[in-house]
Amino acid sequence: MKPQTKLILDLDTGIDDSIALVCAALQTDMHLLGVTGTYGNVTTEEGVRNTLDVLSLVGRDDVPVYAGCTHAFEEDAYLPEAVSRRIHGANGVGQVVLPRAMREAESEHAVDFLIRSMVQYGSSLTLVTTGPCTNLATAIRTEPSLRSWKGRVVMMGGALTVRGNVTHFAEANIIKDPEAAKLVLESGLDVTMVGLDVTMRSRLTMDDVRRWRSNGTAYGPYLADMLAYYIANTLGSEETYIHDPSALACALHPEYFTMLALFLTVETEGVDRGRTLVDHRKIRETDPLSKVCIDVDAPKVESWLGSLM
Amino acid sequence: MKPQTKLILDLDTGIDDSIALVCAALQTDMHLLGVTGTYGNVTTEEGVRNTLDVLSLVGRDDVPVYAGCTHAFEEDAYLPEAVSRRIHGANGVGQVVLPRAMREAESEHAVDFLIRSMVQYGSSLTLVTTGPCTNLATAIRTEPSLRSWKGRVVMMGGALTVRGNVTHFAEANIIKDPEAAKLVLESGLDVTMVGLDVTMRSRLTMDDVRRWRSNGTAYGPYLADMLAYYIANTLGSEETYIHDPSALACALHPEYFTMLALFLTVETEGVDRGRTLVDHRKIRETDPLSKVCIDVDAPKVESWLGSLM
Repeated sequence: MKPQTKLILDLDTGIDDSIALVCAALQTDMHLLGVTGTYGNVTTEEGVRNTLDVLSLVGRDDVPVYAGCTHAFEEDAYLPEAVSRRIHGANGVGQVVLPRAMREAESEHAVDFLIRSMVQYGSSLTLVTTGPCTNLATAIRTEPSLRSWKGRVVMMGGALTVRGNVTHFAEANIIKDPEAAKLVLESGLDVTMVGLDVTMRSRLTMDDVRRWRSNGTAYGPYLADMLAYYIANTLGSEETYIHDPSALACALHPEYFTMLALFLTVETEGVDRGRTLVDHRKIRETDPLSKVCIDVDAPKVESWLGSLM
Repeated sequence: MKPQTKLILDLDTGIDDSIALVCAALQTDMHLLGVTGTYGNVTTEEGVRNTLDVLSLVGRDDVPVYAGCTHAFEEDAYLPEAVSRRIHGANGVGQVVLPRAMREAESEHAVDFLIRSMVQYGSSLTLVTTGPCTNLATAIRTEPSLRSWKGRVVMMGGALTVRGNVTHFAEANIIKDPEAAKLVLESGLDVTMVGLDVTMRSRLTMDDVRRWRSNGTAYGPYLADMLAYYIANTLGSEETYIHDPSALACALHPEYFTMLALFLTVETEGVDRGRTLVDHRKIRETDPLSKVCIDVDAPKVESWLGSLM
């Protein structure tokens, strides 16, 4: 990623979102324009609260935070399921009590901020989404001219070559709003899917917990406690998957990943609702802008993430 | 493929198998050791008959033909479904009446011939399968030392990144014997999966039909009639997919294909029985011998196939 590249994160701030957020906030070679909040691991309101608190923890109260959509296109509301509460804790950050930030979110809606930023910064903007991509999909529906936007989207979500983690077919971010994901993946934008195909190959471990706890920073112990909670409630032994930070890694270091340019879509009907796959209607078309990460140099992602904190 | 490479085809000889067979039989730079017969598009008995007749048509009565397994591991018998009869015709070769070969299949069983050839020729042998891979799976079960065999398998079958063509999950060859496919894909052998991911991207057309019909050979008009039948009963307009010949193309010209080295498996339970996917149990393991063709230079496959006849 070139210096002066602009970055926006769209987060449903649970534990792994928080880790990605800290990594992005500590980067000095790009400009974190703002963070938009969505639902998923937590409600949008809870996620925005966590985002504000995590940014405060790393001394980045200068990064504006915008609350976004609170539920999927075809739903009226959203409440996290029990499994989200178990993995991320009732407060979304592993029951860790973060110092409360001294500010609130901006009054502008996340979708308006997204539209404004995409238009203003064009190809120099990268948007990283780590939850259901309802905010981005809503931006595209609201402002159809964004379909010719030249920036880059890196989306954590989906499972192309591996089983899903909610059903055999669907990954957690996609299943929460398949219509939004379908709109984004079929939009023609430069979207890179960072799904379970790669995020399950990389690991954070209890060694990272121990290192973060004693790294001499104010935020290290908080992140260590959050990661320990996440490890205990996901893989449950000494390690866990690197989901959301892999999307940031892909935005900053695409060379760590093996990508394929493919026309992608999302099944929205039937038992495989939420499955991401190649769009069979475009099987003979060439040169898609959309890409999918199909393999990863896991040790590189792991040492990159370890070196950041 | 190096000169003197040995090739065995394992076919359920319907129309596209016949096209692959003619291509292989006309090759002068490798040694077609034999053809083994399996069930799928047709019964094993019908497929062997078609294989003998097609080989006779191209003057290759010297290539031995072996009848193999007649049904899947977990079945007692096999009869082609109506869809196979529709696509390939009641006789498997598009209702075309081929001149009857003057010989019968060998008395040796296909599985015995496979085991014998794999042991004898080792790494210089390539096996191309275009039907359910019950014969190969049976060979491996019968002779477990074949798990360290150094030759190459190129298997038409499966769908990793696209929908299946029997269910949303399963491709026709795999669904006919998921247990056999699972055994082969998990065997640790050098298996290359040539699935719908690539075979649906390449096309044979009515232009090929017209060219074959007037190419001045004895076999051209027969192949042209078979292809016309296949086009009419698959995509139904002016063109059709290149399924089985793509596996031969991959064996002879791997450079036409984009491949990924992945540990593969087959779902054998539930609604996605027959789905080929990455083995999540081996998500952290590296350097598999198994590969999957994920993209193809379709014009190269099409012109290669066109130039052969």
